[in-house]
Amino acid sequence: MAPELRVVGKPLPRVDAYGKVTGKTVYAADFTLPGMLFGKVLRGTEPHARIVRIDARRALTLPGVRAVISAADVADVRYGGALKDETVFAREKVRYVGQPVAAVAAATSEAAEAALAAIDVVYDPLPAVFDVEGALAPGAPLVHEAWETYSAIPILYREGNICNRARILAGDVERGLAEADRVFEHRFTTRMVHQGYTEPRAAVAAWDSAGQVTVWSNTQLPFEVQNTLAEILQLPPSRIRILVPGIGGGFGGKLRVGVEHFAALLARKTGRPVRVITTSEEELTAAYPRQGTIVELKTGVTRDGRLTGKQGRIFFDTGAFAGSGPGVASVATLILAGPYCIPNLHLEGYAVYTNKTNCGSFRAPSGPQANFAVESQMDIIADALGMDPLDLRLRNIVREGDEGPTGQLLTGVGLEECLRRAADAIGWNDRRPGPSRGKGIACGWWTTTGGSSGVYVKINPDGTVALNTGAAEIGTGALTGAAQVLAEQLSVELSDINLVSADTYSTPFDFGAQGSRTAFSVGNACRAAAADLRRQLFALASRQLGVEPDALELRERHVVAGGKRVSLADLSRLSQQSGGGLIAHGTFIAPPTPYDTKRVEAHVYPAFHSPSFHAHAVDLAVDPETGEVTLHRYVVAQDVGFALNPTYVEGQIEGGVAQGVGQALSEEIVYENGRVVNPNLTDYKMPTTLDLPRIESILVQHPSAVGPYGAKGVGEPPNIEPPAAVANAVAAAIGVRITSLPITAEKIVMALRKETP
Amino acid sequence: MAPELRVVGKPLPRVDAYGKVTGKTVYAADFTLPGMLFGKVLRGTEPHARIVRIDARRALTLPGVRAVISAADVADVRYGGALKDETVFAREKVRYVGQPVAAVAAATSEAAEAALAAIDVVYDPLPAVFDVEGALAPGAPLVHEAWETYSAIPILYREGNICNRARILAGDVERGLAEADRVFEHRFTTRMVHQGYTEPRAAVAAWDSAGQVTVWSNTQLPFEVQNTLAEILQLPPSRIRILVPGIGGGFGGKLRVGVEHFAALLARKTGRPVRVITTSEEELTAAYPRQGTIVELKTGVTRDGRLTGKQGRIFFDTGAFAGSGPGVASVATLILAGPYCIPNLHLEGYAVYTNKTNCGSFRAPSGPQANFAVESQMDIIADALGMDPLDLRLRNIVREGDEGPTGQLLTGVGLEECLRRAADAIGWNDRRPGPSRGKGIACGWWTTTGGSSGVYVKINPDGTVALNTGAAEIGTGALTGAAQVLAEQLSVELSDINLVSADTYSTPFDFGAQGSRTAFSVGNACRAAAADLRRQLFALASRQLGVEPDALELRERHVVAGGKRVSLADLSRLSQQSGGGLIAHGTFIAPPTPYDTKRVEAHVYPAFHSPSFHAHAVDLAVDPETGEVTLHRYVVAQDVGFALNPTYVEGQIEGGVAQGVGQALSEEIVYENGRVVNPNLTDYKMPTTLDLPRIESILVQHPSAVGPYGAKGVGEPPNIEPPAAVANAVAAAIGVRITSLPITAEKIVMALRKETP
Repeated sequence: MAPELRVVGKPLPRVDAYGKVTGKTVYAADFTLPGMLFGKVLRGTEPHARIVRIDARRALTLPGVRAVISAADVADVRYGGALKDETVFAREKVRYVGQPVAAVAAATSEAAEAALAAIDVVYDPLPAVFDVEGALAPGAPLVHEAWETYSAIPILYREGNICNRARILAGDVERGLAEADRVFEHRFTTRMVHQGYTEPRAAVAAWDSAGQVTVWSNTQLPFEVQNTLAEILQLPPSRIRILVPGIGGGFGGKLRVGVEHFAALLARKTGRPVRVITTSEEELTAAYPRQGTIVELKTGVTRDGRLTGKQGRIFFDTGAFAGSGPGVASVATLILAGPYCIPNLHLEGYAVYTNKTNCGSFRAPSGPQANFAVESQMDIIADALGMDPLDLRLRNIVREGDEGPTGQLLTGVGLEECLRRAADAIGWNDRRPGPSRGKGIACGWWTTTGGSSGVYVKINPDGTVALNTGAAEIGTGALTGAAQVLAEQLSVELSDINLVSADTYSTPFDFGAQGSRTAFSVGNACRAAAADLRRQLFALASRQLGVEPDALELRERHVVAGGKRVSLADLSRLSQQSGGGLIAHGTFIAPPTPYDTKRVEAHVYPAFHSPSFHAHAVDLAVDPETGEVTLHRYVVAQDVGFALNPTYVEGQIEGGVAQGVGQALSEEIVYENGRVVNPNLTDYKMPTTLDLPRIESILVQHPSAVGPYGAKGVGEPPNIEPPAAVANAVAAAIGVRITSLPITAEKIVMALRKETP
Repeated sequence: MAPELRVVGKPLPRVDAYGKVTGKTVYAADFTLPGMLFGKVLRGTEPHARIVRIDARRALTLPGVRAVISAADVADVRYGGALKDETVFAREKVRYVGQPVAAVAAATSEAAEAALAAIDVVYDPLPAVFDVEGALAPGAPLVHEAWETYSAIPILYREGNICNRARILAGDVERGLAEADRVFEHRFTTRMVHQGYTEPRAAVAAWDSAGQVTVWSNTQLPFEVQNTLAEILQLPPSRIRILVPGIGGGFGGKLRVGVEHFAALLARKTGRPVRVITTSEEELTAAYPRQGTIVELKTGVTRDGRLTGKQGRIFFDTGAFAGSGPGVASVATLILAGPYCIPNLHLEGYAVYTNKTNCGSFRAPSGPQANFAVESQMDIIADALGMDPLDLRLRNIVREGDEGPTGQLLTGVGLEECLRRAADAIGWNDRRPGPSRGKGIACGWWTTTGGSSGVYVKINPDGTVALNTGAAEIGTGALTGAAQVLAEQLSVELSDINLVSADTYSTPFDFGAQGSRTAFSVGNACRAAAADLRRQLFALASRQLGVEPDALELRERHVVAGGKRVSLADLSRLSQQSGGGLIAHGTFIAPPTPYDTKRVEAHVYPAFHSPSFHAHAVDLAVDPETGEVTLHRYVVAQDVGFALNPTYVEGQIEGGVAQGVGQALSEEIVYENGRVVNPNLTDYKMPTTLDLPRIESILVQHPSAVGPYGAKGVGEPPNIEPPAAVANAVAAAIGVRITSLPITAEKIVMALRKETP
């Protein structure tokens, strides 16, 4: 790397800042077309029932109503991720309250609402399963009867209501537990939570005369939505153009088709553009929230705190459709192992169908749930052994050159530094300053997801640079990070980079804004394109300056050699006049991470690429009367490899902690008999800035060998450890351990009163 | 080349056909944005006058009026082509009737009209020059007083009202004329004509919060307009994004900034999107029409018909601003030379300022005017020598390996074949079948303009291909031709190609849709990108099929080797999973055409790249009573090098002839004392399909060494010869020569009565 970095590593304003702070950015929900109709979705009202009849005749007579569609109007195809079990509308039966049954398009939003109310649906209720225990009980009703016939990736393990069981099997866990001086068994539970993005899911679709449909959507994955729509609409993907304007947050909740298919189908039916936007109630009853879980851990440890073996199971309540469940259940096993050296492991992740909404991905899927269990238990073990929880962790954590749970070689491991610095910053050695006050610590690891990225890059005649990428900027600043890499490599400023993004028609393929991969992967594709452009620039400049290409270098928007120089702007103009213009493409895909294939079963994510490591430390107080928790300080030390833009890395940490604190203390989608009883933002309680202290970030930098300038994925990790760190601090403050999320004031008061909640 | 061509050379439907035939294509004039205002331009009413006062106070009080701007509101910059003499609004004085003086933005088009009427402008008239003779007369008023200070390309020759005089000087013209047996001197005149595009000039501009402006325009040259707006708005070009939706015709009339600057300035002033569309009256009084000319020719010839020398001058009435004049005057000299071997030449092209609208480029600029003179005189000479006009031409035309007038080596010369086949087709040897019936023939040559093209290409996972180009499809089908080249090279079908075009922000630089270059140059850039993609495809397929890359070939959307094959779709998916996706870029610029630099002066286009050759033959009747001309047959034999798509080449020929017949027989913007007296489409008479016979095309194919599959530029040439061919046929029919365009019925009747018109 160049010794002096000008752009990467600098806290520069992000490229999309102006539009967002001035309110001029057009989001999908703002997007309007002439003649546009408004679409709404009619949703099932029974957790499990046969559909006897759908009668839309009256709805169609209402003023302004242009179309009503239901299962009979769409191709009978199943789509989905690892397991194709979803349909656009319920066919024959509904499987959760909120499942789409029909959709309408009308001239106004109000007319569409009226049409929904006028559709008559008759249900014949069926026995339902409302939780994992119910779903796994012998003789439980099946959420999907004939689902062996659904297409799926072949490795999945499926049985009854289980749509995957992924395993890590390392060493001999029986022997490991036998070798232990003590064995600890615990059970933890977590609840379903929503991503809480500001902007609901939204899409506008318009068909053209050639039979192509353009969809403006706030999806994180335009190419994924393109493929899903291709299945649903029965068209080749290239007949479907997905464009992503501004997105008001995603966090994994906008990875999969949301309302794009309704908009496209209604637009096809009516011959008019159609916009569909979800309501808060739809979001909280029928989106892709994080799965509730049950975690059982059995961990063996020697007297001096060495972990000898771990047996663990995590059950994901994935709802009525598999969604991300099979993959999430896989990732979970790597989190259950923890960032620890444990020679003997038997870890299982289950994705279980129930009659609830279809759960999906939420920032570090499985991370907070599994980490909450693992790191809560580490503190329980430390307490039981009379050890400092920090020391117990330092005794067992992975370090440079160690092996991961599935046998991968770990490099760039900054965990010890994270733990020590977070502990120092929170004043770990000065604990329990007052009554009902406690400090907690938790650590973990996470992956940088792979997947292809391609970019086109051109140097404009004023020396600015256009970067075309198929990735969407979902608000993380990741494309600013990638643009910083490009600017650094081309010796221009970040403000010189113009971004063109997320148009399946024109931009190169990108695996999408998911898995903390965008800056990492798009940044590397930019490096490839920049290398090509440097060759072109040096060839042109060599002729201009009369200097051999080898003697040239890029500096401050110029190609220089000794005292001679020529600007990129001049070279671009010259190339337009004499060489076709300065354009290039670059591609990147992360190299595979070798692991021991014998250690895994039915596993979708068997190893972590360029893993990040992190430690969270919190200092809080609990009001013993009300159970209210007040966070005084929150410190995150995160090994980010290299911080392409410290400001936005810190922004990711702050946002991730805020979301994590919500999951720790207050957030929960509450189901009663298959119905959500708090489907609004008053009763579903997310923390605000008033509920949070300033979050202190410590950026630890043990570089990835692959990432641009050593960067690792940074977006998801900050969401992992907050529940565990808060739980450990609460336990320290009140002396009682709460093993279920969220740790509400009510639970704290009951725990202090020794009542069971 | 591959022995069997599947896509190129085939009459396939064009890629933009569906939207156009179904009326769904969005043109710039259709483009609407929420909150958009309507802009209108106030135009000067005096040919030459000092502006005493502009008072917009009353206009600003009218309902709906949001802004009035004039010279005082814009930066004092001059812009233009070879010579920067234009301003957005008249400053201090107006120089032609129609020159923009102010512009308004209002909530409705009607309110904007009312505002125009309410602006009070007081003029103090100045002496004006209304034609070339007046402008060149001693002591003539100067259209621009201090114009030596304007910036200009250095080679121009400027004096008085002359803004360029380009010359070809070859051999010794005095000796050439002295060696002749006879010397012929003639004078020809042509009038100002409009391109007659269906859609008026239109633009919508919208500024964003970051100070960038996006302009949807029906320009032929988005990158040129971007640069001009950068000068006008005083911004770096990359802050200006030009997008070209559908265009309803251009023909050179939409090369330069039209209304984009008014839209951008009004939008900046009002903070709202603004649309500006010209009216027919504005088009016919203040657009960029073809210059009227005076041509003087003095040609020496031997008794047996050998041309020994030619002295010629063409004067372009370029209006109040240079516009394309300096370049057009240059090109004209190559047309004055004709496609003939003449050892001694002294040819001059003058661009002359007058107080008329600013003339521009119109399909083969200078071609019809100069060719009308040259080819009329050839027939006069043949008559005088008692030779068959065809024989006189065949005696003198250039053939393979000959030298052009400026010394370029001519290759791929199909002119003799064109002449012989056009003559055969029209029944040349069976002339004068009836009274007042005549056949005429004319021939010529033209260039394929160079300039850079860059493309980005990606192969989608369904095997379709996205082609990103900075060129606009202006209705010629040229991008279909380029897409055919790409499809051929990648073994896919034309319908597999998706086009993304003409967005200065995202697409690579392209020199633009001008000079018959688009299919030629973009097609060659596609060849370069396809070569890169073939390498990528073969590398991937080699691993898939276990076959060496050298043994592979592309066939029918697959990579094949013996009995093994893998589809492009599968390879694309594979690449997305394992290699970043199949993307590539390609660039092209035409190599220079060597010529004898000593033969030219002040010359902007000293040689013709990959020249095309053509002969037109017409069979017509003249009603001696009314002077009405009825075309019975019209044959074009054009050496197109290789017809990438015969249908659209024929379409270009048909359209070019129709426009040329209009210029030959009826079209004329009539000025009286500096004012256009026929500024409407009733009095400005363009031919319709009812006025034209079926136009018969003969595609002659002497390949260019550079063009894709040998293709040469085809768009402009068909517009060159119609006036000459028609004039020669009319002369043959009535026995009287008319030397001024248009050859109206009135002129014919007067000629038959031996009156001077």
